[in-house]
This record gives sequence, C-alpha cells and structure tokens, in this order.
Amino acid sequence: MGSEVRTLNVAVVGGGLVGALVTCFLAKRGHRVNLYEYRPDIRVENSRGVSIDLALSARGREALRAIDLEDLVINHHGIAMKGRMIHLKDGSLKEIIYDSVNKNCIYSVNRTYLNQILLSAAEKYENVTIFFNHKLLDADLDTGALKFIHMQTDEISNVESDLIIGADGAYSLIRRLMIKKPRFNCNQAYIDHGYVEVSYPIGKDNKYIMSGNHLHIWPRGNFMMIALPNDDYTFTGNLFAPFKTLEALNTPENLLEFFRQEFPDGLRLIGEEKLVKDFFQTSPKTLLSIQCKPYHFGSKALIIGDAAHAMVPFYAQGMNAGFEDVLLLDKLMEIHNDNLEKVLPHFSEIRCDDCYAICDLAMYNYVEMRELVTKKAFIFRKYIDTVLQWLFPKNWIPLYSTVTFSRMRYRDCISNKAWQDKVSLNLTNFDSIALQY
Amino acid sequence: MGSEVRTLNVAVVGGGLVGALVTCFLAKRGHRVNLYEYRPDIRVENSRGVSIDLALSARGREALRAIDLEDLVINHHGIAMKGRMIHLKDGSLKEIIYDSVNKNCIYSVNRTYLNQILLSAAEKYENVTIFFNHKLLDADLDTGALKFIHMQTDEISNVESDLIIGADGAYSLIRRLMIKKPRFNCNQAYIDHGYVEVSYPIGKDNKYIMSGNHLHIWPRGNFMMIALPNDDYTFTGNLFAPFKTLEALNTPENLLEFFRQEFPDGLRLIGEEKLVKDFFQTSPKTLLSIQCKPYHFGSKALIIGDAAHAMVPFYAQGMNAGFEDVLLLDKLMEIHNDNLEKVLPHFSEIRCDDCYAICDLAMYNYVEMRELVTKKAFIFRKYIDTVLQWLFPKNWIPLYSTVTFSRMRYRDCISNKAWQDKVSLNLTNFDSIALQY
Repeated sequence: MGSEVRTLNVAVVGGGLVGALVTCFLAKRGHRVNLYEYRPDIRVENSRGVSIDLALSARGREALRAIDLEDLVINHHGIAMKGRMIHLKDGSLKEIIYDSVNKNCIYSVNRTYLNQILLSAAEKYENVTIFFNHKLLDADLDTGALKFIHMQTDEISNVESDLIIGADGAYSLIRRLMIKKPRFNCNQAYIDHGYVEVSYPIGKDNKYIMSGNHLHIWPRGNFMMIALPNDDYTFTGNLFAPFKTLEALNTPENLLEFFRQEFPDGLRLIGEEKLVKDFFQTSPKTLLSIQCKPYHFGSKALIIGDAAHAMVPFYAQGMNAGFEDVLLLDKLMEIHNDNLEKVLPHFSEIRCDDCYAICDLAMYNYVEMRELVTKKAFIFRKYIDTVLQWLFPKNWIPLYSTVTFSRMRYRDCISNKAWQDKVSLNLTNFDSIALQY
Repeated sequence: MGSEVRTLNVAVVGGGLVGALVTCFLAKRGHRVNLYEYRPDIRVENSRGVSIDLALSARGREALRAIDLEDLVINHHGIAMKGRMIHLKDGSLKEIIYDSVNKNCIYSVNRTYLNQILLSAAEKYENVTIFFNHKLLDADLDTGALKFIHMQTDEISNVESDLIIGADGAYSLIRRLMIKKPRFNCNQAYIDHGYVEVSYPIGKDNKYIMSGNHLHIWPRGNFMMIALPNDDYTFTGNLFAPFKTLEALNTPENLLEFFRQEFPDGLRLIGEEKLVKDFFQTSPKTLLSIQCKPYHFGSKALIIGDAAHAMVPFYAQGMNAGFEDVLLLDKLMEIHNDNLEKVLPHFSEIRCDDCYAICDLAMYNYVEMRELVTKKAFIFRKYIDTVLQWLFPKNWIPLYSTVTFSRMRYRDCISNKAWQDKVSLNLTNFDSIALQY
C-alpha cells in the first residue's frame, strides 16, 4: 500500500563470500550496512584462508547475476568443468558428464578472488562501510547491540543495529549466542574423515597436466582424492579419508607407499618431493556439518551461509546454498516491505528444512563419490537417467541436476528423486541404488 | 602393579544432584574435591528450583547404596509407586503395574530434599569444600583453569584443577566450551511441547486425595497430564502439551473449559480456584534433549548428567542416568588406577552411545504415555510381556523393566526389545506395536 520503507541500520558479521554478498544486496535495497570482518583486508594482505576450491553452479550464479558479477566471475575467471573424470587404480580414466542433455557445467572459482571482487562490489555502495580487523566479542540479540575488538589495536567498540546478520561461518559466534536461547535446535556433527590438501603443478608449455575441463576423482571405497583446475593451470587436490588412515601416513615413506598403491597416476603428476612437502605442511583438517532451526532470533538477528548450515563439501553446495540464502532474504524483504518482524520468521520457515536437506545430501554424496561412481549400478543408473531426461526433458531431471543446475527447493530435490527411484526400479530392477536416496 | 595413585585436585562445576553425588564418590576415592554451585546453599535458603518430581529407580538406587544413602532416601522419604494409574476421560481408572512379576516399584522423591542430603553427605568428607554463590565465567579445558564470579560480592576467583567435572546441567557452560573444540558432536533439540506445573492438595484427614502408590496419567493423545505423590500427601501434577495448545489456554475461562472437557476428575480434585492460580503463576516451560559425543576433552575435562545428556522426562531416567554416570566413572577410576588419560576416553567410549539411546527412548516414551497406554494393542502387549516374563523370568524382561529395574546398558535395552518384538509379533500377529521400538 505504498507504505514508506524504513532505512535499516544493518550490521553484517563476517566478510567472507556470503557476508560480502548480503552486504551488496541490502545496500542495493537502500539500507545502511556496516560489514565487520576479523581478518585484514584480503585485497591488501592475502592470508591463506579456507581451502577446497569452490564449484559455482546455478544458485550461486543467479545471486551473482543480480548484482551484475556473473559474467566477470564465470567468463573471465571461472574454469568450466563439464563432468567428473574418474581415475581408476590401474590408471584408466572414465568420464561422467554432469549434464549431457543441457550441457550445463559447474565452474571452478578461486575463493580469494571471488571474495575480493565481492568486497569491492560492496564498497562501491556509498551506504556501506567495511571494518576489517574487527572481531566480534559479544552481541545482544534482543537489542541488536554488538561489541567488537580491533585485532591490531585492541580497541573495543560498541555499536547498535536494527538487524544483525551473522555470516560468520561454521564456527559462528552469533549462532553460539542463539544456542543459548530457548527452542533453538542445533545439530553439530563432525564426520570421522578429514582431509589434506595437495597441489598439482602446471604442465608443460603452461598447460594443464590433465584435463582442465573436469573435476577429477580417484574413488577408492573408504577414501578418495579429488582435484579441481585453477586458472593458473595448477590443480588443487584434496585427499579425504578416515582420520585413522590419515594418521597412519605419518612418515614420507608411508605416504609415498600409500600413493604408489592407491594413486599411482596422481603421484606421478604431483611428484614425490612436492607431495611430501604439501602433505606435511599442515595437519589433516576436520569436516563439519551444522543443521539448526530457526535461523532467526526475534526481529533483530539472522544467521545465513555456513553459520546456519555448514555442510561437508561433497555436493559443492556450501557457497551456492549461502548465496541462495541471500536471494531468498532479498525476495522476502521485497514481499514484506522490509518489515523484519515478518521477514525473519518467514525466512526460517522456508529455509531451515531446505538446508537440513542439502546438508544430508552432501553427506550422502560422499558415499557416492567415494564408492558408487565405480560401481556398475551407479553407471547404469546415470545412463538410464540420461536416456529418460533426453526423452522427457521437462519431467525427468536427475537429482544432481536439480540440486546443481536448478533452483528447485533442496527439499523437493529429494522427494523428486524418490519417485524417480521408484520408476527406475521398475524399469531396471536394480535395488542397490535405492539406498542412495 | 601397585603404582601409587596420585591425589587429584578436582573441580566439580554444579552442586545439583549429580554434582553433589560425584563429589562424594571422588572424595571417597581420596581426591581433593572443590564443588562450585552458583546458587546459595539450598539447605539454608531454598529457592524454588527445577520442578517435575523425581522417580528414583534401580540405577539411581545403586549409586545411593554405594554411599550408604539408599535406605534413608527410599525407606524414609521415598513414596513407592507400584504402577501407572490411567485416568480415562469418563473418570474411570485403569491400573498398569510396572512389574507384576518381581514387584519392583519406582520411588517418588523430592528433588530439593535429595539435593540437601547429598550436599550434606559431600560435606562430611574433610577433603571436600563447597563454594556456593560461585558462578562459572570461563574455563580452560586444556589446563584445567577456571574463573568464577561470586554472585553476591562480584569477586572474581581463578582456580586451577587437575580435572574439571561439568555437572552444570542442561545449559552447561562446560559443554558449550567443548562445542568449540574440533570433533565434538552435539545435538540440541527442543520438542514442540511444553509443560505447566499444577498441584493437587492434601485430601481429607491428611490422606492422599487419590492413590498414593501410583504414578497418575491422563493420556489424551496429543497431550497428557501426570501427577506424582509427595510425602506431604500432596501431588505434583504436570500438563504436557504442544505450545499451541498451552498458548490457547490464555484466560481462566479457556483453562477451566479445557479441564472440564479433558480432565474433569483432575479439575474436581484440584479445585477451580487453585488450578487457575497454579497455572498462571509461570509461563509454560520448554523440554530439551541433548545428545553429544564425546563427553571428555583431553585429560582434564568431563561432562556428566544433564550437561552431557539432558533428556525429556518421560522415561524418568534423567537423574538415574546421571547417577549411573557416576557409578561408571568410579568403576573406570578403579580399573585405570585413577589415570585420567585412560579413564576419560574410556568413559566416552562406553557411555555416549548408551545415553544417545536413553534420550531416544525418553522421546518415544512420550508417545507411549500420551497415546498407547489407552490402546488395546498396548494393553495386550503388556499382558503378553507379563505372561512371558512369568514363564521365563531370566530371559524375558520387558523394555520398561530393563531400563527401570536393571542396570542393563541402555543400548542393549533397545536391542533386547527388538528381538522381543519379533517374537511377540509371531505370537500375536500385532503389527502396530512394532513402531514403538
């Protein structure tokens, strides 16, 4: 009814990918946004942050498109990956295209680069101020008050806000403050597997040392290695395995023997000396899944991105889901005329169940990547999927495609898969695959 | 090999039931124990604390026996409840005996009284000091350092310890510190139901107003009321219902109309005026379930009781499970010669899975209490159970009995029930009951 929209004073906690993105969206809506990041400005001082390359897909792309960054990210800095390249133990390769019908790709993107352009995009809005080196000490979710300490000067600052957006990652302090509130549900689960990063060097003549248009996977049952192409012609690889397995690789000899057995082609490409150097640089890292409900408290606090739904990386949906949070928030601000008393509960109502679903899917996809891609049942199911999608392009969209190449609600992707499983079971009489959602 | 046991300097955080009990056990082993409680001494200044009466059963009794308090608690202050008394809507009653074969009872015990005698028992050990009004502000789980504030003087005290025992309840700060550590799994879940306490007056001639040897239940499908006898001839009742239902009871008229419909006999016994007064004294309280793993961090910190496994109250195992934690800790201290590097991981290894199980069982028992006790299938299954237990007293122990009247590991109680269900399905061809574990 044309009611005047109040300009909100928003405090975004966390200047990672999702924090920088939500800052852009809220600034674009005309709100006053202060973004607080505990690290220095990564555009000036690039400290090595979180690893595992990003794979940008439909949900993330749509968010970037809304602030006119999609073309820059995809076409100038993204590496298109059209499918999985499976490396078997005997050195043979098998290609599994992600979307042979519509030719959709996922894009390998450098996390630091993407974070830098999002910060710069945010800073272009005159109603945005970014405070680096500001670590959150405490927040009052009832009043919107926040207390920060400057990491270099130890100066304390107290600020007020109409809305706190906790985009402060998997270990979110805003979430930990919500956990103390009644009727806040939260499940924090570490898997028994960890990971170590290794890096593949540039090939001859400044070319990729293996195909630059694939996500490479070495599935080995209980563990696996993956590698994603970077735009400097290197690959970033990650070995995922049970902590027990990783802890047994405690000497260069054990490590090399393990690679000779399991990843002979990987070892040849990386080189023994480099592998040992990379591998022992850090300890194995943990993998965490966070499911919680609701995402808001009262009308002054909301968590988004990893703060709300950190997930294991095996569906490559962590960033994409976080970016989709921002699209949803923007849409609800539009619908409810920026009235937070309506926007925040509506956000939780819609989003929590979807993110429970994608966290579960990410966990299950680890099994698929490690194991099923080498099994005949899986390959055959992919084939059936492709044929049916080709025959019924509107009505038969495989689970991977609905998650990765559509904006179908994550919850619906699962129920969609459930009826497909029923149909293809009747078609093929395969039962083992039913286990896999 | 007769190696000298080191005297440990233990800090127990929380002087509730489990904190006071573990203090006794550790003091008995010869350790130096400081117990910190944020409230004043309840033996002097009794502030109304947590409600819901306690129902003491085998696990709790065994722990009290070990410090010579069982007889005092059970025979002098416990009210034996031999079964459930079901109140149907038409006012008719149905008795369901807990253990008609071995005649075991559960005992209604006053929480404050039990807490008082445990504190006094702890204080009798000269190697114990109790610090009341000491609220924990922070702890270093690596070093065992703790920081307290005195609730009346605001004085800060820093103390050192060899072992921190977090017995600080469902909202445990020690647990919240553990949550920040890698590989700590925790699931915090509120149910959509809350509860309100009401109280039944003393009957004529200082007698109970209804049977004093039963746990009274008014099962009504989606909600229920229960009442436990107190030793002053009153009953403490609790109405458990979805928050939506409770919130609709927002005027005396709505409340009385609801009771007239659903609990006409309860209303007559309590009286309209008293019911209205009790009901509107406080807001409905929440019900929380906590499952986490592990229970220890390093060799200096352990959580027990509600801090480790708060559960909904429907199996009456919260205190009993907490007391059994103390029995297990004591046993492992014995086995490992008080070597914490062995005791603490072993405690987590054994105990976490069992407490996941009892938390789940407590959740399922809510359905049983609300619903199944009125269904023919349930009554019939109880009958079959009784006959089979009478025929095979060593081999056929119903689930309720293994949980309540034995020290069988909670996890094994569930698997034990699973095979019984299979057998009795074959005997009776009932299928609905299989849902209920």
